[in-house]
Amino acid sequence: MTAVARQTAAEHSAITRARLDTLLRIPSVSTIPAHADDVRRAAGWLADWMAEMGMTRADLHEAPGRLPLVYGEWLGAGQNAPTVLIYTHYDVQPAEKSDGWNTEPFEPTEINGKLYGRGAVDSKCHVVIQLAAIEAMLKNGGSPVNLKMLCEGEEESGSEHIYEFVANNPDLLKADVCVISDGSLPNESQPVLDYGLRGIVSFEIHVRGPKRDLHSGHYGGSVHNPIQALSEIIAQLHAPDGSVSVPGFYDQVELITDEEREVLLPMRAPFDEEWRDVTGAPAPWGESQYSLHERISVRPTLELNGIYGGYIGQGVKTVLPAAAVAKLSCRLVPYQTPDHVWECVSTHIKAITPPSVTVEVIRMEAGAEALIIDRTSPALKAVTIAYERGWGVKPLLSREGGSIPVTAEFKKYLGAQLVMMPFGYKNGGAHSINENCDLGMVDKGIQTMLHFYEVLSSES
Amino acid sequence: MTAVARQTAAEHSAITRARLDTLLRIPSVSTIPAHADDVRRAAGWLADWMAEMGMTRADLHEAPGRLPLVYGEWLGAGQNAPTVLIYTHYDVQPAEKSDGWNTEPFEPTEINGKLYGRGAVDSKCHVVIQLAAIEAMLKNGGSPVNLKMLCEGEEESGSEHIYEFVANNPDLLKADVCVISDGSLPNESQPVLDYGLRGIVSFEIHVRGPKRDLHSGHYGGSVHNPIQALSEIIAQLHAPDGSVSVPGFYDQVELITDEEREVLLPMRAPFDEEWRDVTGAPAPWGESQYSLHERISVRPTLELNGIYGGYIGQGVKTVLPAAAVAKLSCRLVPYQTPDHVWECVSTHIKAITPPSVTVEVIRMEAGAEALIIDRTSPALKAVTIAYERGWGVKPLLSREGGSIPVTAEFKKYLGAQLVMMPFGYKNGGAHSINENCDLGMVDKGIQTMLHFYEVLSSES
Repeated sequence: MTAVARQTAAEHSAITRARLDTLLRIPSVSTIPAHADDVRRAAGWLADWMAEMGMTRADLHEAPGRLPLVYGEWLGAGQNAPTVLIYTHYDVQPAEKSDGWNTEPFEPTEINGKLYGRGAVDSKCHVVIQLAAIEAMLKNGGSPVNLKMLCEGEEESGSEHIYEFVANNPDLLKADVCVISDGSLPNESQPVLDYGLRGIVSFEIHVRGPKRDLHSGHYGGSVHNPIQALSEIIAQLHAPDGSVSVPGFYDQVELITDEEREVLLPMRAPFDEEWRDVTGAPAPWGESQYSLHERISVRPTLELNGIYGGYIGQGVKTVLPAAAVAKLSCRLVPYQTPDHVWECVSTHIKAITPPSVTVEVIRMEAGAEALIIDRTSPALKAVTIAYERGWGVKPLLSREGGSIPVTAEFKKYLGAQLVMMPFGYKNGGAHSINENCDLGMVDKGIQTMLHFYEVLSSES
Repeated sequence: MTAVARQTAAEHSAITRARLDTLLRIPSVSTIPAHADDVRRAAGWLADWMAEMGMTRADLHEAPGRLPLVYGEWLGAGQNAPTVLIYTHYDVQPAEKSDGWNTEPFEPTEINGKLYGRGAVDSKCHVVIQLAAIEAMLKNGGSPVNLKMLCEGEEESGSEHIYEFVANNPDLLKADVCVISDGSLPNESQPVLDYGLRGIVSFEIHVRGPKRDLHSGHYGGSVHNPIQALSEIIAQLHAPDGSVSVPGFYDQVELITDEEREVLLPMRAPFDEEWRDVTGAPAPWGESQYSLHERISVRPTLELNGIYGGYIGQGVKTVLPAAAVAKLSCRLVPYQTPDHVWECVSTHIKAITPPSVTVEVIRMEAGAEALIIDRTSPALKAVTIAYERGWGVKPLLSREGGSIPVTAEFKKYLGAQLVMMPFGYKNGGAHSINENCDLGMVDKGIQTMLHFYEVLSSES
């Protein structure tokens, strides 16, 4: 059944590209409240497509203060066939052309086989790949597995509400395998399958000094400058060896074993090369007893995401500002909890703040624990075969540095085997300027999903 | 002659207030190129007023890339009378209501005897006081001293061009006494006369890491975050005792003598009180072996005026940014030179920047040396008497923490006795939000100027 679906999908490549174009034009930015209606518009578009292709459910799950979850299903494979729950998200990070984009972020533009636009790689290509694969099967008599699809609209803004939805709807979402379809391969040609994700928790530090901005001549030298005080706090969050110097931060961290180090060894050289190509940074940085790949996969971090204070316009303004703010996030590894890390970081920051300023540390999200998938599970084996067939290359195994907050909830409430099937690529500019997806990878992604369903159903 | 002028000025109080209102409505922001025409409009308005009141010259001095200097003169007092050159500036710092103003910054609003608007205290009240005093004399037969007035349009943006103008026009500007009319008294009732000013030089630090913004999950832990690196640099610019820890920074600094410490002693308690009222900071900060007043007057500083990097919008964006920028300025004391301080600071910053990022230190202005006025000069004595008559209170002597860059040039090229006659007040929010001047002080300022001319002419 899926062989003919693969043929249909290949023939419909231009239609799929047009679907992606349409979805990318909707600025479904979940982190900015003013875009809430755009997020809802994207959700409606998804549900319409699900219904149109013949999925038997295509529902928007909304509640006050929440952006919609889109749930679709097709259970025509019968009770003996396995059920697959696919998770992805249709919301995106903010983007303005003035950030440095070469094209308008919400006017998709194709250049050399890449489609540029905010959300192209994170994660609207996944939304379209998954639905196009399902559509190709439903056009040809149906799928060999039962299908459930859950598309989130708040992945970029903390995933606050999907937790409750998953906890409250275990029967609706019940599945044998849960496919997390988000994230990236290192490049277009070599698939790498992740069996781990880092968790995350985010904060803001607000340092306040004088009650209002002061003239730096009139009071400079007698008042602790909040920018300076904030910088002094930030400078105390890492040790010279690149480790996080927050007491208790590493308490819950599982150290990497020699066996796992061996599994990840093939990733070192490719990641070193990727690192040089993608970052262009003058020199590596971080914990020198770990390889660059280990630093971003098996080690937790404390990262500065933004800072502002005082005059940030053109030219000179000799102000001594009233306040300065930094935005931080920690990437977590097994078995760190967001609560523990929040507690350690906020306590430490308060402890090192001098009496000449005041500090407020604000937790920005519930956060998410890291994820580890059993490397021997049948579902991961099916994924491996599917990628090998879709790409024509044997995949490597790795752990991913990014976070997909909801994975821990799926594991906890659904009891399904979790696997990750990413079809983005790292040069795709996720969370950055000039975000893009590779249109060839979109086609391969659809083929890979169809192989996956075929392998999974034949195994069961 | 000035007694009747004082009477006229008192009667014209409402007209003076209306003049100030008109001038405050012109957003003559010299630090933002888009406001260049507004600066020119303010200059034209000043020259028109000078001509209208009967000054015999009222010229705009313009050149490519420069904002106009307005020069007016009236030399009718005769060759035997002293000549006074008055300096002030009509340009202002940037301001937006969204910065936290209660009123529109360029729509002057009177509340409880204060007039709110950007530039009210720094320094448009001085422009209006000086011209209103001259007008009152010219309406009553003339002034007992010859008058030259130079109004600058680039004081807030580095005063780059007035240096050349002063150097090239010593004959035009030649005077016996040069009055710097800018700055503030600590409050409405107690005049304090400054015999010193701090100098200034400004920089920007640009720290760059990866070639573009990165996803903090994909690369966090392996790349030195530019916000963190910049914070680590900033944290190394001060020692724990509050002193500047840049090698060579204090090389040229003249230490305060016991004699001068005695002169400044009466300022300690009032400044401590002012400090508490105005700053509202949780605790004092700085070099503990100096009083708060000494820290802002006889000691040099290195101050952070602004910082930005990464995502500074609402909510969370997990970016590892490509760059971070800080704006700094140093306040200088005798006999520090801007060149030496620039050299020390930029060399030190480059020396402490780790190889994992790159740094660029940009000098933002030529800068200005500090100024010290001989406390025994006849001109300073005339100023003291004038304030005592204008305010009805004996003035205290002090040194000012702010900078008036052009003073060093006046001293160098004109050979005139320099004095400072400020009519702002420190609660006036210079360089901050809700800037305002006290309308009672504007009237007293005009009276004080008229007393000054009277004393000066009777002494000569």
